[in-house]
Amino acid sequence: MSTQDFHLTCPIPIQQYPAVVMAHGGGGRLMHQLIEKMFVATFGSDNLRTRHDSAQLQLPTARLAFTTDSYVVRPLFFPGGDIGKLAVYGTVNDLAMSGARPLYLSLGMILEEGLPMETLWQVVLSIREAVQATGVQIVTGDTKVVDRGKGDGVFLNTSGVGVIEHDLLIAPQSVRAGDAVILSGDIGRHGIAVMAVREGLEFESAIESDCAPLAEPVLALIEAGIEVHCLRDLTRGGLASAVVEIAEAAQAGIQLEESRIPVREDVRGACEILGFDPLYVANEGRFVAFVPRAQAERAVELLRRFEVCAEAQVVGEVIESPKGTVVLRSVIGTSRVVDMLSGEQLPRIC
Amino acid sequence: MSTQDFHLTCPIPIQQYPAVVMAHGGGGRLMHQLIEKMFVATFGSDNLRTRHDSAQLQLPTARLAFTTDSYVVRPLFFPGGDIGKLAVYGTVNDLAMSGARPLYLSLGMILEEGLPMETLWQVVLSIREAVQATGVQIVTGDTKVVDRGKGDGVFLNTSGVGVIEHDLLIAPQSVRAGDAVILSGDIGRHGIAVMAVREGLEFESAIESDCAPLAEPVLALIEAGIEVHCLRDLTRGGLASAVVEIAEAAQAGIQLEESRIPVREDVRGACEILGFDPLYVANEGRFVAFVPRAQAERAVELLRRFEVCAEAQVVGEVIESPKGTVVLRSVIGTSRVVDMLSGEQLPRIC
Repeated sequence: MSTQDFHLTCPIPIQQYPAVVMAHGGGGRLMHQLIEKMFVATFGSDNLRTRHDSAQLQLPTARLAFTTDSYVVRPLFFPGGDIGKLAVYGTVNDLAMSGARPLYLSLGMILEEGLPMETLWQVVLSIREAVQATGVQIVTGDTKVVDRGKGDGVFLNTSGVGVIEHDLLIAPQSVRAGDAVILSGDIGRHGIAVMAVREGLEFESAIESDCAPLAEPVLALIEAGIEVHCLRDLTRGGLASAVVEIAEAAQAGIQLEESRIPVREDVRGACEILGFDPLYVANEGRFVAFVPRAQAERAVELLRRFEVCAEAQVVGEVIESPKGTVVLRSVIGTSRVVDMLSGEQLPRIC
Repeated sequence: MSTQDFHLTCPIPIQQYPAVVMAHGGGGRLMHQLIEKMFVATFGSDNLRTRHDSAQLQLPTARLAFTTDSYVVRPLFFPGGDIGKLAVYGTVNDLAMSGARPLYLSLGMILEEGLPMETLWQVVLSIREAVQATGVQIVTGDTKVVDRGKGDGVFLNTSGVGVIEHDLLIAPQSVRAGDAVILSGDIGRHGIAVMAVREGLEFESAIESDCAPLAEPVLALIEAGIEVHCLRDLTRGGLASAVVEIAEAAQAGIQLEESRIPVREDVRGACEILGFDPLYVANEGRFVAFVPRAQAERAVELLRRFEVCAEAQVVGEVIESPKGTVVLRSVIGTSRVVDMLSGEQLPRIC
C-alpha cells in the first residue's frame, strides 16, 4: 500500500462506534465497513483487496511449510510487545523452524463485544508493523464477534505459509549423537515481562519481552551451508520443555550446561520472587539449533551477526545415552534430569 | 490411521480430568498428553505425528488457495451439525469457492477452562468425521486454554490450503452481463436451525442445518468445462449479502427472481415467527455460481447429480444496469432493491 492513503487515526469513527458491537461480526454492512476500512486498508495486500473467500497464491516452489497458532495473551499489551506482534512473529517463527521462508499469513480475529475500537486499532497497527518488519503478507482473514463476557478483548489466530528452498530434513529424527545444541540468546524474558505486568511487579529497569522474528538468522545458517538437524523456538514450557520434546522424539540423550545458559540477573531475580525456574519460562524470540559439532563454531558466529542472536552460544550436546532424556549439569558440577513442565506455570503467555 | 488404534471412548481419563484445566494449554506434560492422545491419535496425519512446529507439504502444483475462518457458533451442537463440522466444511467450502481442490487444514482450538472433556471429545470426533468425508488432512494445530468466563466452551479456527488446477479467474471481476446466477439449493436452514435451538422453538418436523461440503459439485462443474465466472458460498448475511457483495465488487447489476428461490415452508414459517427475511439468513451448504447463460442449463444438470445440490436452479441473471445493484422481482411482479444486511440479524451463527 502507499503511505499516502494511510492514516494513523482509527479509520472507524470512534464517536459513532466507540466499541465493537455484535453486528461487527454479523456478515452485514457494519462488518464490511470494519473489514474494508480497518483491515483491508491497513494490511492492503492485493489478495485481501479482491475480497474473495480465499487467497490465490502462486508460489516459487511446490514444497511448502504450513502452520497455525492462536494467541490469547493477557494483557494485550506488555513491555516489549503485544498480541499483534506475537501473532505475526510467533507464526513466522514456526515457519522458520522448518527452515522455510515465511511468505503469507492468514489472520482470524475473535473480538469481544465492547472492545474499545481504539484498542482494536492499536492491535491492527502493531500487526501491520510486524508484517512490514518480516516481509510477509496478510492475504486472507476472518472476523468474528462474541458477546460480552464470552471472550477476552481480542483473540487472534494466524496461520502461515512459507516455502522450503533446501533439502535438509529439519526435524527431531535428524538429531545425532555429537550434535551441538546452540541456544540463540538469554532466556525467560517474555514470560517474566508478561507476569510482571499482571502481578504489578516493578523492577529497577523494565524487563521487556524478547518477542522477535527469527527467520533471518535461521535462513542465514541454511544459506551458509550449515547442516541444520533440528530447530525449535522456545515458547510455552520454555527451553526445558522444547529440549525434552526433541530428546523424546529423537530418542537421543541431551546434556545441557547450566553455566552456559544466559539468564539476565533481573530475570533470575524475578523468577526467584515469583517461584519460577527460568528453564521453563516462555520466550518469544529464542530458539535452539542442533548442528554437527564440527560446524557449531561457525554457526554461532553466523548467528551473532544478528542482533536478536547476539548472545548465541553452544549450551550442550547430544549424547548416546540415556536415550530420550535431558540432563542438566549445574554450575557446581552436579547433574539432574530435566523433565517437561508438569502442570501449569504461566497461563496465557501467548 | 488404522481403525484398530482408534476407540470411540474419550482417550483422556474422564475421572481424572473431567474438564479442561488451564494446564491443558500451558505447554507442559498435560498439554502434550491432550495433543498426543486426543488430537494426534484421532486425526492421525503423518505431519501431525512429526510434532514439528509446522507441517511440510509437497503440493502437486505451486498454484494454491489459502483461507481461514474462526468458528464461534452457539450452541456447539445443533440439529444437522456442530461446531466441528462447520469448521471443516466452512473452510473446505471457502477453498472450493476459488475452484481449488481442498487438501490440508490447520486446526487452532481456544478452549475455556471447565469445558467438559467429553464435550471436547465429541467435537474432536465430529471434526474427524468431517475430515474423512471431505478427504482433507489436518496437518498442523494449536491448543490454547483461557480462564473460565473468558471464552465460551470451544472456539475453533481452521485455515485451509488447496490446489488450483484450472486457469479460470473465479472472482467478481469475471462476472459479465448475460451470466446466469445459479443457486445450489433451498436457503435459510442453517440460521433457523441454530436460532430454533437457542429460542427453544419446536417445529412439527425438525429443521436441520444445511451444513455440508461443496467441493465436489464445484469441481465437477470445472472438470466438465463450464466457464465458471464467480462462486460464493452463502454464510453470514445470507444470499442477499453475498450477491450484493458480488454486484458491488463486479460493478454489475444482478436481477433475482424471488419465485425461483427455494425456501422450505417450515423455514419460511419460522422466519415469520422470528422476524427474519430468508434472503439474509445464514446457510452453510449453499452457494451461488455465475456462469455464461449458454452453459447454465448444463451446469444445473451437473450440479443436480449431487444430493447437496439436488434443487440447484437458475435464480437470476446479470444485467447491464443499474451497476452495483441487486434487484429482486417478487412473486407478484414488483421489483425492489436488495441491500446488504444492515446491523445484526443472527449473532454467532458460525
